Amino acid sequence: MAQTTSQKSWLDRLWGGIADQGRAFVRVPAPDVSGQERAKQLAVSLLSERGEASGAALARELIVSLRGLGEAERLDVLRSLSEGFFPDPEKLRGAAEAYLQNPTPEAATRLHEAAEPPRQELLRRMNMAAGGTAMLVALRREILGHLRHDHALRPLDRDLLHLFSSWFNRGFLELRRIDWDTSAVVLEKLITYEAVHEIDGWQDLRRRLLPDRRCFAFFHQALPNEPLIFVEVALTAGLADAVQPLLARPEDAVGIPPKGADTAIFYSISNCQEGLRGVSFGNFLIKQVVEELKAELPKLKNFATLSPVPGFRAWLEAQLASETPPFTDEELATLSPFAGGATTPLDRLHAATEGQWWSDPARAKTLRGPLMRLAATYLLRSAAGGEKIDSVARFHLGNGARLERINWLGNIFPRGMAESFGIMVNYLYDPETIAANHEAFVKTGKVARSAEVEALEGKKGKAGVAKAAS
Amino acid sequence: MAQTTSQKSWLDRLWGGIADQGRAFVRVPAPDVSGQERAKQLAVSLLSERGEASGAALARELIVSLRGLGEAERLDVLRSLSEGFFPDPEKLRGAAEAYLQNPTPEAATRLHEAAEPPRQELLRRMNMAAGGTAMLVALRREILGHLRHDHALRPLDRDLLHLFSSWFNRGFLELRRIDWDTSAVVLEKLITYEAVHEIDGWQDLRRRLLPDRRCFAFFHQALPNEPLIFVEVALTAGLADAVQPLLARPEDAVGIPPKGADTAIFYSISNCQEGLRGVSFGNFLIKQVVEELKAELPKLKNFATLSPVPGFRAWLEAQLASETPPFTDEELATLSPFAGGATTPLDRLHAATEGQWWSDPARAKTLRGPLMRLAATYLLRSAAGGEKIDSVARFHLGNGARLERINWLGNIFPRGMAESFGIMVNYLYDPETIAANHEAFVKTGKVARSAEVEALEGKKGKAGVAKAAS
Amino acid sequence: MAQTTSQKSWLDRLWGGIADQGRAFVRVPAPDVSGQERAKQLAVSLLSERGEASGAALARELIVSLRGLGEAERLDVLRSLSEGFFPDPEKLRGAAEAYLQNPTPEAATRLHEAAEPPRQELLRRMNMAAGGTAMLVALRREILGHLRHDHALRPLDRDLLHLFSSWFNRGFLELRRIDWDTSAVVLEKLITYEAVHEIDGWQDLRRRLLPDRRCFAFFHQALPNEPLIFVEVALTAGLADAVQPLLARPEDAVGIPPKGADTAIFYSISNCQEGLRGVSFGNFLIKQVVEELKAELPKLKNFATLSPVPGFRAWLEAQLASETPPFTDEELATLSPFAGGATTPLDRLHAATEGQWWSDPARAKTLRGPLMRLAATYLLRSAAGGEKIDSVARFHLGNGARLERINWLGNIFPRGMAESFGIMVNYLYDPETIAANHEAFVKTGKVARSAEVEALEGKKGKAGVAKAAS
Amino acid sequence: MAQTTSQKSWLDRLWGGIADQGRAFVRVPAPDVSGQERAKQLAVSLLSERGEASGAALARELIVSLRGLGEAERLDVLRSLSEGFFPDPEKLRGAAEAYLQNPTPEAATRLHEAAEPPRQELLRRMNMAAGGTAMLVALRREILGHLRHDHALRPLDRDLLHLFSSWFNRGFLELRRIDWDTSAVVLEKLITYEAVHEIDGWQDLRRRLLPDRRCFAFFHQALPNEPLIFVEVALTAGLADAVQPLLARPEDAVGIPPKGADTAIFYSISNCQEGLRGVSFGNFLIKQVVEELKAELPKLKNFATLSPVPGFRAWLEAQLASETPPFTDEELATLSPFAGGATTPLDRLHAATEGQWWSDPARAKTLRGPLMRLAATYLLRSAAGGEKIDSVARFHLGNGARLERINWLGNIFPRGMAESFGIMVNYLYDPETIAANHEAFVKTGKVARSAEVEALEGKKGKAGVAKAAS
Repeated sequence: MAQTTSQKSWLDRLWGGIADQGRAFVRVPAPDVSGQERAKQLAVSLLSERGEASGAALARELIVSLRGLGEAERLDVLRSLSEGFFPDPEKLRGAAEAYLQNPTPEAATRLHEAAEPPRQELLRRMNMAAGGTAMLVALRREILGHLRHDHALRPLDRDLLHLFSSWFNRGFLELRRIDWDTSAVVLEKLITYEAVHEIDGWQDLRRRLLPDRRCFAFFHQALPNEPLIFVEVALTAGLADAVQPLLARPEDAVGIPPKGADTAIFYSISNCQEGLRGVSFGNFLIKQVVEELKAELPKLKNFATLSPVPGFRAWLEAQLASETPPFTDEELATLSPFAGGATTPLDRLHAATEGQWWSDPARAKTLRGPLMRLAATYLLRSAAGGEKIDSVARFHLGNGARLERINWLGNIFPRGMAESFGIMVNYLYDPETIAANHEAFVKTGKVARSAEVEALEGKKGKAGVAKAAS
Repeated sequence: MAQTTSQKSWLDRLWGGIADQGRAFVRVPAPDVSGQERAKQLAVSLLSERGEASGAALARELIVSLRGLGEAERLDVLRSLSEGFFPDPEKLRGAAEAYLQNPTPEAATRLHEAAEPPRQELLRRMNMAAGGTAMLVALRREILGHLRHDHALRPLDRDLLHLFSSWFNRGFLELRRIDWDTSAVVLEKLITYEAVHEIDGWQDLRRRLLPDRRCFAFFHQALPNEPLIFVEVALTAGLADAVQPLLARPEDAVGIPPKGADTAIFYSISNCQEGLRGVSFGNFLIKQVVEELKAELPKLKNFATLSPVPGFRAWLEAQLASETPPFTDEELATLSPFAGGATTPLDRLHAATEGQWWSDPARAKTLRGPLMRLAATYLLRSAAGGEKIDSVARFHLGNGARLERINWLGNIFPRGMAESFGIMVNYLYDPETIAANHEAFVKTGKVARSAEVEALEGKKGKAGVAKAAS
Repeated sequence: MAQTTSQKSWLDRLWGGIADQGRAFVRVPAPDVSGQERAKQLAVSLLSERGEASGAALARELIVSLRGLGEAERLDVLRSLSEGFFPDPEKLRGAAEAYLQNPTPEAATRLHEAAEPPRQELLRRMNMAAGGTAMLVALRREILGHLRHDHALRPLDRDLLHLFSSWFNRGFLELRRIDWDTSAVVLEKLITYEAVHEIDGWQDLRRRLLPDRRCFAFFHQALPNEPLIFVEVALTAGLADAVQPLLARPEDAVGIPPKGADTAIFYSISNCQEGLRGVSFGNFLIKQVVEELKAELPKLKNFATLSPVPGFRAWLEAQLASETPPFTDEELATLSPFAGGATTPLDRLHAATEGQWWSDPARAKTLRGPLMRLAATYLLRSAAGGEKIDSVARFHLGNGARLERINWLGNIFPRGMAESFGIMVNYLYDPETIAANHEAFVKTGKVARSAEVEALEGKKGKAGVAKAAS
Repeated sequence: MAQTTSQKSWLDRLWGGIADQGRAFVRVPAPDVSGQERAKQLAVSLLSERGEASGAALARELIVSLRGLGEAERLDVLRSLSEGFFPDPEKLRGAAEAYLQNPTPEAATRLHEAAEPPRQELLRRMNMAAGGTAMLVALRREILGHLRHDHALRPLDRDLLHLFSSWFNRGFLELRRIDWDTSAVVLEKLITYEAVHEIDGWQDLRRRLLPDRRCFAFFHQALPNEPLIFVEVALTAGLADAVQPLLARPEDAVGIPPKGADTAIFYSISNCQEGLRGVSFGNFLIKQVVEELKAELPKLKNFATLSPVPGFRAWLEAQLASETPPFTDEELATLSPFAGGATTPLDRLHAATEGQWWSDPARAKTLRGPLMRLAATYLLRSAAGGEKIDSVARFHLGNGARLERINWLGNIFPRGMAESFGIMVNYLYDPETIAANHEAFVKTGKVARSAEVEALEGKKGKAGVAKAAS
């Protein structure tokens, strides 16, 4: 795509210092310019005629050049890319006026084309070099780190996201199974990127790839050896209700024979590429993995997650501090023995949940009722009510899953206790109801739930705590 | 990307007949609708919330549905896609007005986003299905067949081209060597797609993949087993000046040992995917193949084409019929013995080039001088002069190649004789001068040429010809 | 394995002319010796200490050297290898005497070791070079061509066969499916090696690899791209009774959808490597392909061949010329109308089967009864009776298959008519009975057969021809 | 290969208890026999006609059966295999007598065939099953563990070794580069099998596969994911003289850029398969790796090991305790300050090399002279002299390498200090001299050495030492 005259003028203006009689900007930079300056000039050249003939070579140079800079210098170049390379203002004004005068489809198309910032073409050309995609993803990661306080980077961020959304389209992703036959260069990425339940070195990784486990990842051919997202699955008999037996098992654990399993538990999903934030993969991954597993193991009947409830404690504490704390009087009374004299509901909860409270059967039994009920309350609030929905719930419910079961002490590792008093949740992916669940959730905020969860929430009114905890 | 309210209204308006209380359009089509109608409804669903949850599944259905239609029915669906799915007019008007009032970068960005037709998002979602990309490329091939007389398809064509340009970015192409170890499913594509020198079945193909040949193609992972473009290369000692010895040789021909060659002749380049017309691959292919060959065979010094001159005869005949025909009087006189009494320059040429004239040494000798000179004239005309440049020349000169040599009787097969009196041309790719050649050609129309070609054109001076061709 | 002194002496004696003070024989040959001489000297060196240090390099040289010889020269070298390299006679005599004196297991082992000809070690060392195995297989092919009249080559032939039997053990073979995704370099081998129903070029090959067909081959990693044996399979509904519809079908024939087939017909099995004659692959191939097909297509119930009966006509003609020709009087009478006055049974048959007799319904009807009956007689003769069993029957019955059906006019191509009046046979591979069938056939000569075939043979006694042919 | 009658009789005799009227032994075992008995019966069946028809299936059963046994039971079966399956004694006697009467080549061949134990055929048939080779290799590993005290296993051991030598012929091995792209299932084998310098987990492994390192292994297709032998190589500038910098370096060490290296140091070679003991791979591995490295990095000039001297200390201590200890008086005197009053040479050495003596510069300086000289003496002793050559030296000298350099404190890890006072050695592989070095070493025991090593040994002359070590 050749530039118009006026765009060139704009480039000339921008890079005036290096332009020599209007032509020099297509030259490669002089050897004595700084690295930063060199990168900027290469970017301009890449968008010029020179870029048309020698695009891949120039793109390679630019990428090498960016890689060689310090982070601060690179940030300066990125800011330049973000602050320049806007559409030709005269042309855009003309197209906007034409559209307003006569809003035909053709005029709309022309306006869209006039409004495309040349920056997008520049980024597409940078992508031509070997390693170009990886570099652009890395640049966006840096940009995201600065974005909150550096608004000047927003246009560049937006253009990158737009391109990534198109380039990393589901149709271009490859699902690969990952197991102990996979290369170390990929496997070590799992250790690095696992975001839910930390992988503690190679022996732990090996345990997660034993025959009763499955692991799948999406890859894109422009990022070889780089998983974009991966999911860890345990094959079980029935819904797993706790992560401890899944994670903390001996190295030579055997587990259920895969052909005997009736359930696939998705117990960890991790996005790997910070630079691709905003491009969603999880929904597709889960659904394709369900299909893969069905094909391999036709006896599988349930496909469900074992998920954390990261926002429960924070929500509950806010509730307890509010004017209408959600504990019933009966519940508050049962907490007394463990409250150490505390009087407010929040203090009572804090007192009751100090130390390793879950290993004290009496405490655990007492707390189970109210906490399970309130977890149901927390998770079943309608998304339409304007309330902040739990982030993990939002993801799975938005994918069309159903809230199937709430599990007491499903995660007694520190993070699980801290986030949600150890409560974990199964979200069930039932292909028959996914579309309807999703639609209801998006349109009305309604949370699809099992009868069991429904009943759990109902327990508040009906009965005392003792029953609830049984 | 969720639709805004106003966009949904627009969808409702468009598909009013099928909308039921504003919600039905997200349902899957009823079983009794026609195939056409079904495809249209699936397209709308795919862009709706339903498409967000079950995108890949819906996209698959839509693609199966399109595949099942007859060509006329499919054309009807395509026309619908092209005539609907425009940006929300109110939102676009607002963004245009805002920009005109205050043309900030942010306003430009918002205008660009408001102007993007939802059709692009629809196409991106169609691409999510397995085989989606192949289907979109096939659809565009059909569209291109109708485009000249069916302008309604233009918006759809433009959106497809925009997406393909981004998706088939050089960074996403994989160069593969093709040889006799390649699968039959790919090899038979070469026979189908070869556009320059027809491949006459498997034995002929085999000859083109002997050890002194190389063949490379670009592939994209979304189109497995489908070459996008391929180039055939002969390894030779010195520049090849004719295709006959390259093509018509015995099956057990051995050729030069690859390690002894100093020249790589690119004697055929074929684009394979009509549906990707407008996305350019040739420039990148040639340049990467040069790098591959250099790495494999460090003794290679010259990288050149052996190319046809498809427009020469038509141009020459037009010139001869003009008021200032470009033959010199001397040249016309030498043609007399073969002119059979014809008097006009054009008639004389026709008479002299009847039958297998090139196998008559006297005729061939007589014609060589003027035809070679005029071929040089034809090829060296400046692109800036407003004249139509030979299409093959335009491609290679635009890539930065140099017109290195004009070859007499380089292609005596019927097509070569018909197009250019058998004249063929070597374009030389010299990495040192590619960028400068390209730039000069694009900016001033100047054709890079060797001294030998320069001298050939100069011969007109000696013979005192009119300056008609300058 | 170092040679003993006495073996070296033997080598010295053999190669005395080139030995120089007892050491030179380990040197590489002088540059002026003939190619033949050079190969012989290299063979000796390869077996010497030099061969221990530089075995792969020497082996490579020897193989290059053998490749460079003319066939007659190479034969001379092969004869040398066959006539020398015997075990050390003194050592062997000692071991034999020791064993006879005291036939312990240890003495037997020592005798076995002393009796191994050093030629086997030489061949093992030749195999160390890249391409060594291929060269040894090629050498044996040449040897087999001379073996009948050149007994001197027998020891070498026997050693090669012994090694090949060990090296090409089933455990070292790889079964690969062959289809249109296979490389051309392998596919063209199928065209070359097909031995049962000739493949007429690439289009014919393509027809044999359509979706309702399967093709599998064994490969060995030392012979890359070289199938050892391959089988062609048609997926059908019910037992196929004729090859015509399998072979002569249009290019775009679709056939039964593979998932709908209940029968796999093995209609062609071809050994590819003449040099491996005597190493059997067919039995293993059929049985593993049965397992592969069962795994891919669980609905398959029958696994059967459609096989020629190559020895039927020759046997029948010999019978008819004998004193007790097997036609009944009634049968002979029915042949009269087509006998043209011939009187002997053999002449009557010849007269009746002249020209395209099978397309004359009357003749075909008349001949069907006696020929089908006699085919059954021919095929059911016991292998124990000392009679020569049909070669194809021997192979399949020896593998444990059952003679399931005899098909009238199952192959009307010239070869089928010439060999067996167009009669073809289905041998059924039923995993349940394979072992018992095989055992009975090997021990008692009994031919496993279906009731239908059993009945066919019985028809002679019972009834007239007319019934038999119905 | 069918058995002769007499062989069958022998089998009958051996397995009389299970034979039922001479036929039952070909049946599969009854369900109630013990696992041991079952395995024995399957072995006999496998060698019978049943084995001809259903070999692969029977072999599979036998292997599963062997795998299911406890080690003691399996040993019992192995002993049976070793004690039975001898050649038919009558036939062998006949062939031996025939040969003695008339020792023709044909008689020798027949004798060799008669002497082959049917056990070899049994083992070849066991190999037909998937996993058969791996099982046989595992069985031999068990056998080797018992061989010293259980001579009954020798015939089986010898047959296995004979077959393995043929099956694992160099021509059937595949060299593969191993790096961080290799699968974890292979990489963890390196950690397990490293025999020279222990690999301390995955991080240590990763360090050994950094860009300035190379690792290659031989694989055999019948043992997938199982390296047979591997070598670790460091790319360096000049000969490396110590392992510490090679092994104990930070994870992010960069090392020399591979293209800048002039030397490849083979610092660790490990055989992996105990069951293949006696089949030599090391010689071939080193030589092919040299060729691979030359092709990849043409600037490499030296290919050398950095090797331990495992027998030095033991030899030296024996020498010092002998009547003519090899220290000179001067040397003994210089040791006095560190001898703590010890008087005998051996005691003085012990006293001087207590604790971390090498980190005391004075001691190290004093000890260096005599120990380096004596290491040279130790290593240069002729193999022909009947003395036991250092095992590592024997391997490399036997391969044709040259003793290039002796390095002071080349390995200060405990094992190196314990074996050889930290002394390490470079053996140089110079393709020009390999064959001659090997030949001289094998025939005359002469150790190829550099001038530097030669000079080192010569130093004893100066100091006037007794010729004890010569």
